[in-house]
Amino acid sequence: MSWIEDPAFGADQPFGPQTLPYGVVESPELDGPAVAVRVGDHALPLRPIAGSFSDRLADLVGADSLDAVLAAGRPVWSELRARLTELVTAGSAPRGAKLLPLGEVTNRLPFTVADYVDFYSSRHHAENVGRMFRPDGDPLLPNWTHLPIGYHGRAGTVVVSGTDVVRPNGQRKGPKDPAPVFGPSIRLDIEAEVGFVCGGPVTSRVSVNKAPEHIFGVALVNDWSARDLQAWEYVPLGPFLAKSFLTSVAAWITPLDALSQARVAPPAMGNELQDYLVEDRPLGLDLRMEVRWNDTLVSRPPFASMAWTCAQQLAHMTVNGATLRPGDLFASGTVSGPEKNERGSFLELSWGGKEPVVLDDGAERTFLEDGDTVVITATAPGPDGSVVGFAEVSGTVLPAPVA
Amino acid sequence: MSWIEDPAFGADQPFGPQTLPYGVVESPELDGPAVAVRVGDHALPLRPIAGSFSDRLADLVGADSLDAVLAAGRPVWSELRARLTELVTAGSAPRGAKLLPLGEVTNRLPFTVADYVDFYSSRHHAENVGRMFRPDGDPLLPNWTHLPIGYHGRAGTVVVSGTDVVRPNGQRKGPKDPAPVFGPSIRLDIEAEVGFVCGGPVTSRVSVNKAPEHIFGVALVNDWSARDLQAWEYVPLGPFLAKSFLTSVAAWITPLDALSQARVAPPAMGNELQDYLVEDRPLGLDLRMEVRWNDTLVSRPPFASMAWTCAQQLAHMTVNGATLRPGDLFASGTVSGPEKNERGSFLELSWGGKEPVVLDDGAERTFLEDGDTVVITATAPGPDGSVVGFAEVSGTVLPAPVA
Repeated sequence: MSWIEDPAFGADQPFGPQTLPYGVVESPELDGPAVAVRVGDHALPLRPIAGSFSDRLADLVGADSLDAVLAAGRPVWSELRARLTELVTAGSAPRGAKLLPLGEVTNRLPFTVADYVDFYSSRHHAENVGRMFRPDGDPLLPNWTHLPIGYHGRAGTVVVSGTDVVRPNGQRKGPKDPAPVFGPSIRLDIEAEVGFVCGGPVTSRVSVNKAPEHIFGVALVNDWSARDLQAWEYVPLGPFLAKSFLTSVAAWITPLDALSQARVAPPAMGNELQDYLVEDRPLGLDLRMEVRWNDTLVSRPPFASMAWTCAQQLAHMTVNGATLRPGDLFASGTVSGPEKNERGSFLELSWGGKEPVVLDDGAERTFLEDGDTVVITATAPGPDGSVVGFAEVSGTVLPAPVA
Repeated sequence: MSWIEDPAFGADQPFGPQTLPYGVVESPELDGPAVAVRVGDHALPLRPIAGSFSDRLADLVGADSLDAVLAAGRPVWSELRARLTELVTAGSAPRGAKLLPLGEVTNRLPFTVADYVDFYSSRHHAENVGRMFRPDGDPLLPNWTHLPIGYHGRAGTVVVSGTDVVRPNGQRKGPKDPAPVFGPSIRLDIEAEVGFVCGGPVTSRVSVNKAPEHIFGVALVNDWSARDLQAWEYVPLGPFLAKSFLTSVAAWITPLDALSQARVAPPAMGNELQDYLVEDRPLGLDLRMEVRWNDTLVSRPPFASMAWTCAQQLAHMTVNGATLRPGDLFASGTVSGPEKNERGSFLELSWGGKEPVVLDDGAERTFLEDGDTVVITATAPGPDGSVVGFAEVSGTVLPAPVA
């Protein structure tokens, strides 16, 4: 029996010893922010038990963010995870250990985001959007099946789960408006996504088969989107203010090492791919996501349905010589499955606002209203029939400031 | 007479005492990288003379990058510039001063780039591109005159002037290609731009009239662009790999404080603007740029012709609540004037490759060839009839790596 007496830390629980996600917590019990590992419903800060690690690891885990861990690279990540597994499954606590209930700690964004890239890799999402906005054309654009479409987002507004979402002001122009109007977005939406946190030495031209060497872990992302701002601004250079006001990322990063049982092949693309995008062993991942809108389960996006894997995304992102830095974050794009109740945005769930979603309390919704809360969670298959958990990414909408 | 005996430091020279741009230099004479000011054809590192500043300033100027200076904010920027002006115009050198010829120092990227945003604010450039790519439609899209169109670029590949430009590999698909092909870009281009380096406290919703409080200085930018990659990838989310391989920025940042005589009003937009974009006193700037292709002067882009000012760009970028951080860099977009010899990209100068540019040695060019060097410089009106200089941004094209 582990010294950690938390029923949520059982091997049959999503945050049992098979998962061990990393975060950064603050607490009056601690001398400043501390790297921590999540064990069930508790945080185990690592600085107080740094003496239980090798000197090399002690420096990394004693820090106030995951930045040094990310920079250290995969051999160190594996060594750290192995030692952590020993410590949390031992019969007695390491000297100095402080086990803090999750409800009594404050989570911080666990790493410094270097560059943030957002992809668009769900065929169902891309087709749904295409059908709504280009009803007369092919729902999928010709480049989509040849490369993972993506763009850069704003790193400075990536925030930790739980941060309030202030409704953005901006310009919009409906088809009947003679001129653009300025004010609070009236089509505020979510995008349920999966984010990948990168590390290791600064590099470039990451081979698609070497991608796992550079991906530290996985965290859920909500890429809040103002659809009315987006529709007006996005031609020809892409989304800008419609996305840059806030992007939420989960407080706990599930290590890629925990996901060896979750690997799946993505659906066939239907055309040949360039060599640099062909994986020997695909890095699709079988995450089962859930989206809750004010506590109503409104969608179960299946990440296994994504057409492009994180390895293909990473290889594409760096094939032009662009450098990859520790702290780079890239997200999958909205995860939407083939079924209506598998869509990862409210734009799709309400079909452009035409088919309201009815919540459990009878309230109807198309886009987000002030006061609404959205929570996204996920699980994946773990070793020996276990389940690996992904910490929630959540946010509550606050009214726009008076412009 | 100043103790600095450099004819290039005269008041009638672009890098005289009216300019005083900031950079970071390395030299065997120095104990690591040092913040420096450019005086004529010399660098004056500030760490060796930190004792000549107040304690508050000494900490900032003793650093190995401009990051702390940027974070300090405008009152400190003004105090620092005033003290520097005293020191460089005095009759005797401050104790410990080391004056290093520019040819004997190595320039480093002078600050840590937080987020990088690229605008698209030349009406002539946008119209030229529109005419080439949408010959049957209105050259300007309907949103262009209502908001400064922009997008996020890759901060991690912003490099200092002089860094080699490795030709990117990527996917392209010409109109006659049955499928995309992969290989070195065959339409490698420049974009002659003006960059704005931000600082001060982290903030948001910067009022258009308060923009100067948050803009530390101005540096020329070359936003290298692979037009063939761009044409294939950019729908619907904008340019990505076509731009992210490299963006060059000048080694010396000309303070905004040096440009009080260079302010001009931009050309009239022709329609009403939203209140948040209306400036009491426009921050257009009369920079006269020069683009040299292998030493041939091929273009003189007039920055005063830009339709959107840096103040409007900054107000727009933050009106949705997006935070502004010290180290944020935004660029104007390609600067093109109304005349053919005022265009800021080779795409425009060669009209999509149809009208080759003839260099002084008789060589013809449409897009960049391996070994080509491009140098962009600029000047602006200074006080008392002087001229304020902008350090060059340059780069030489190297062959693509074997894919």
